Amino acid sequence: MPGTLLLLLAYLTYLVLGAGVFWLLESPAAHDSSERFQHDKWALLRNFTCLDGPALDSLIRGIIQAYQNGDIVLDNTTSMGRWEFVGSFFFSVSTITTIGYGNLSPRTMGSRLFCILFALVGIPLNLVVLNRLGHLMQQGVHSCARVLGGTWKDPAKARWLVGSSALLSGLLLFLLLPPLLFSHVEGWSYVEGFYFSFITLSTVGFGDYVIGENPRREAGGAPSTHLPVVRVPGHLLRARPWMNPSRNYPLWYKNTVSLWILFGMAWLALIIKLILSLLEAPRGSQSAIWRDL
Amino acid sequence: MPGTLLLLLAYLTYLVLGAGVFWLLESPAAHDSSERFQHDKWALLRNFTCLDGPALDSLIRGIIQAYQNGDIVLDNTTSMGRWEFVGSFFFSVSTITTIGYGNLSPRTMGSRLFCILFALVGIPLNLVVLNRLGHLMQQGVHSCARVLGGTWKDPAKARWLVGSSALLSGLLLFLLLPPLLFSHVEGWSYVEGFYFSFITLSTVGFGDYVIGENPRREAGGAPSTHLPVVRVPGHLLRARPWMNPSRNYPLWYKNTVSLWILFGMAWLALIIKLILSLLEAPRGSQSAIWRDL
Ligand SMILES: [K+]
Ligand SMILES: [K+]
Repeated sequence: MPGTLLLLLAYLTYLVLGAGVFWLLESPAAHDSSERFQHDKWALLRNFTCLDGPALDSLIRGIIQAYQNGDIVLDNTTSMGRWEFVGSFFFSVSTITTIGYGNLSPRTMGSRLFCILFALVGIPLNLVVLNRLGHLMQQGVHSCARVLGGTWKDPAKARWLVGSSALLSGLLLFLLLPPLLFSHVEGWSYVEGFYFSFITLSTVGFGDYVIGENPRREAGGAPSTHLPVVRVPGHLLRARPWMNPSRNYPLWYKNTVSLWILFGMAWLALIIKLILSLLEAPRGSQSAIWRDL
Repeated sequence: MPGTLLLLLAYLTYLVLGAGVFWLLESPAAHDSSERFQHDKWALLRNFTCLDGPALDSLIRGIIQAYQNGDIVLDNTTSMGRWEFVGSFFFSVSTITTIGYGNLSPRTMGSRLFCILFALVGIPLNLVVLNRLGHLMQQGVHSCARVLGGTWKDPAKARWLVGSSALLSGLLLFLLLPPLLFSHVEGWSYVEGFYFSFITLSTVGFGDYVIGENPRREAGGAPSTHLPVVRVPGHLLRARPWMNPSRNYPLWYKNTVSLWILFGMAWLALIIKLILSLLEAPRGSQSAIWRDL
């Protein structure tokens, strides 16, 4: 019981420290961009004389409300990610993996209730699949180590070598190489792609980056020339060609990403399980954990 | 190996079926609201003669971009949920629990990298805490059953009774009663509150509903009278008083909700583990699972 209290205290401290760092890192940027937005709003007001301040505020509020409700689809077309079959499938994946990007979320009461039932069975089912995949990966690593240990007559060295190369190749395959693909197809920077990869595979899924409905195919983030460009002041309207339905994603892309999510989650679950055992294990038994890997 | 293929096939079938249902349920509503939005846009264009079609499109696109970037803060004030300490703390909780609502997400590269490190240690730490809490809950149920079994001289009946009342009281405490609180404080309907509760505790966290930054305190969702009401056509501007900084949340509210998240997740993890063992267990051993509970 005192152990539990200590654990809760450590947990709280960790959260408070994290909150402090995020506060320090984000609040200046948030303040800046809020000021920039106010500045742009005044520029807009000067240009569009038929809008007064409260009307513009109201307009902005209404547009964001409509966006939150999922009402906004520009140019009479639907983007790839919305409620067609492919979009619905990706939504289903994001639900049962508990990633929950939230770029799509059910709007009708019927589909909300269905979503709950779907998740109630789907989340355990997904865990079963991830467990099985993780088990297969572990088995592969173990049999490699056994074969190599038999050849070398040095099982400890073989285990160590195979274990670390498995760790490294997983890191490459699931976290370090995919950002290259994303930066090519989605136009993100490498760090943005890496951030997306980690936030996805850890199932946090903020939804600030989602594949398949993103801006700028063009390198460097230059605005697409397909969209009408209007000369209005302020960077408010120097926006990226967001939700551009004219961009083509390669056909193999979403399937490959789905496979990456599945195997990557299984792999990251193994890694998190490893960190978990390191956190939970009493001192001295940690070498046993490394051996188990 | 054929078992794994069958499992993957079942998984894929489940996803395809779910996608089909979501497609059927959501696409008509999405189509309707998209049409309504187009209609409202034309009404706006008639009213604001200084805006032409492309300028309005560009304006809408720019506003949504700014909103996605977290730039928009109306009325020069910051809402409760943003990057102050309380907001950062709630963001930290949402990250390490992997809920990841995404109403806030880190914007600067520094805080994104910190976020990855923070999650890498925080997610396992959170799992340790949840495991401990779940273990304590199970122990409580077991010792109740033991005491009652000793009194009644009928351990099986005592186990059954204590187990089902634990299930029922968990259901009440974590899923059925909290929506009442949310509907009181946030102004959601009961079903909306229930949907929020489930989506939160299952760690899906779409972010379509988040506590602490919500519209209408008033019953029935009537617009607040604190905001300037502008007469402009279309329901686009009949928006709810969204991000209204003048609303007061009770002081105990966010702490209570954090505790609910913590204990509720531990409880739901137990339930999902139960469903998981039912899915994974070979036939015949299922009664053993019920006994373990
Ligand atoms: K999530
Ligand atoms: K999420």
